[in-house]
Amino acid sequence: MLYVDSLLCTPLERETPSHRPALEALAAGGVGCVTVTVGFWEDATESMDQLVKWRYMAEDNADLVEIAFTAADIRRIADSGRCAIVLGFQNVSFLQGRLGYVELFARMGTRVGQLTYNIQSDIGGSCYEPSDSGLTRYGKYVVREMNRCGMVIDLSHVGNTTTLDAIEHSLDPVAITHSNPSTLAAHPRNKPDEVLDALRDRGGMIGLSVYRNLVGEYTTAQKWSELVAWTVDRMGIEHVGIGTDFDQTGGMPYLEWMRQGRWAREIQYGAGSKTNSGPQEGSGWFDDPTQFPNAEACLRDRGFDEREVALIMGENWLDFYGRTFKEL
Amino acid sequence: MLYVDSLLCTPLERETPSHRPALEALAAGGVGCVTVTVGFWEDATESMDQLVKWRYMAEDNADLVEIAFTAADIRRIADSGRCAIVLGFQNVSFLQGRLGYVELFARMGTRVGQLTYNIQSDIGGSCYEPSDSGLTRYGKYVVREMNRCGMVIDLSHVGNTTTLDAIEHSLDPVAITHSNPSTLAAHPRNKPDEVLDALRDRGGMIGLSVYRNLVGEYTTAQKWSELVAWTVDRMGIEHVGIGTDFDQTGGMPYLEWMRQGRWAREIQYGAGSKTNSGPQEGSGWFDDPTQFPNAEACLRDRGFDEREVALIMGENWLDFYGRTFKEL
Repeated sequence: MLYVDSLLCTPLERETPSHRPALEALAAGGVGCVTVTVGFWEDATESMDQLVKWRYMAEDNADLVEIAFTAADIRRIADSGRCAIVLGFQNVSFLQGRLGYVELFARMGTRVGQLTYNIQSDIGGSCYEPSDSGLTRYGKYVVREMNRCGMVIDLSHVGNTTTLDAIEHSLDPVAITHSNPSTLAAHPRNKPDEVLDALRDRGGMIGLSVYRNLVGEYTTAQKWSELVAWTVDRMGIEHVGIGTDFDQTGGMPYLEWMRQGRWAREIQYGAGSKTNSGPQEGSGWFDDPTQFPNAEACLRDRGFDEREVALIMGENWLDFYGRTFKEL
Repeated sequence: MLYVDSLLCTPLERETPSHRPALEALAAGGVGCVTVTVGFWEDATESMDQLVKWRYMAEDNADLVEIAFTAADIRRIADSGRCAIVLGFQNVSFLQGRLGYVELFARMGTRVGQLTYNIQSDIGGSCYEPSDSGLTRYGKYVVREMNRCGMVIDLSHVGNTTTLDAIEHSLDPVAITHSNPSTLAAHPRNKPDEVLDALRDRGGMIGLSVYRNLVGEYTTAQKWSELVAWTVDRMGIEHVGIGTDFDQTGGMPYLEWMRQGRWAREIQYGAGSKTNSGPQEGSGWFDDPTQFPNAEACLRDRGFDEREVALIMGENWLDFYGRTFKEL
């Protein structure tokens, strides 16, 4: 069965600590495709330096992974028993305000871009912003240009007003790659029913997360499968997948970089809080990619049939990537 | 007959003065392909800004031009009665010292890169350098990476020692896109027999120029065709093409930028001199792209047969591009 993780946070391009065990964990879990986090706050050249590091890592570990540029690549790589890496960014800071860089970064292999990370940008408001501007004039151009260039629009960390604007303005279906329904687990990073409905109505996808700060009470396998079932009931089976938000190796320095970047001197807590600031304790049953089979098992236990399990575990994402990726 | 110009210097991406008349001149001359000058001194993001401008220009003038990424693109675009634009740089300053950027700029569409412009770089020595270091260790990596990524190595402004090193170190044939034989016209920008022979022995190409500072006494159509015939006798018919070095619109500010960049405060004269610093007076018979048919006529007058004229006017370059461009 094809397993797709629509958001892996592990900095696999880093050599310290070695990425090899993290790649072996993907293999051990039978994961056929991950969309990775190439950057959060990097400008154009820093993002290009990151792309080069990911390429080098993939070349050096070609027995386990390969960078995928098309949905056909993903299927081929997964069928070979390896894991396809889709290059995604959790921000589009690489644009540096240039509309024309969308095409250039798409040509360089970028397939997913989140419109904002944790702070407002020239494109729109983040989910942590007290006042969400909505999608800006520049943001509207960027959305259409991402459509043209086949770069998936990710809205996971984006504010709800900007998110609804982007869903409406996009000509292609868009994605929330790693969030949960806020009706079940209240958190700024989770999404209200209104957003889930709009996403569904335009053919979009959500990747449900197992990140402790985002699951609320739905921590056990049984409870988490209930969260999945609720989302499927709300949105329809074909709109739901898995986006773990796993960080296998990062630790505190990486967590600080993603939360704080260079935009603040005071400590920022992202999805955590002052009293709960470190890497989160795992659930015990789905804490890293080796445990993907546990997710499959809990969906079966919940009563999903063979086809439904396959759709949620990976086929929905592959279909979505096939509908949104484009070759220039 | 396919006309290919392996080096056009006109800044067609600039809106002032309007590029449209310069594009119409390419059409009037029946030119099917030009390799253009996207940059001289620009760093990575400045070069990307330039690439975007060229794309916008091509989109806005799609009735006359289209950017070509493959030799098949060139043939198709030329057959449609328009001019194929090959994106080339007269320097690889866009690398900013990063080996990995070769692939990224190739993916963005760059097909030709000159190893140095008028000054020494981290890659090697220029033709104006009192002491030519030869190809550096980094330069050797860049040459092989350009081979892998299908980016043509241009040596026109490169010093002779570095040029010979690059010819030897490259796995693919390389190019001198706009120079003449220094045996006929002594000038630092022209190439000695030793370089021409090495270029030929490795399957390379030279684009002969009509730029006044580089033709010496070979200014008239009759004399210039003698220069062509001499080069063909030395190198063989399949290694010779045309690289005009035309600048249709640039004028002094552009000339100053290309000569001086940001590397000097004192005025630099490039291929000119203190007493001969401005744009050069034309030859009267081949001063801009509208006069490409005059070049064809003078080759016929010199006694080249139909096949030989076609090879020199464009087919040799198309064949060379087919042998060196690669899709990643």
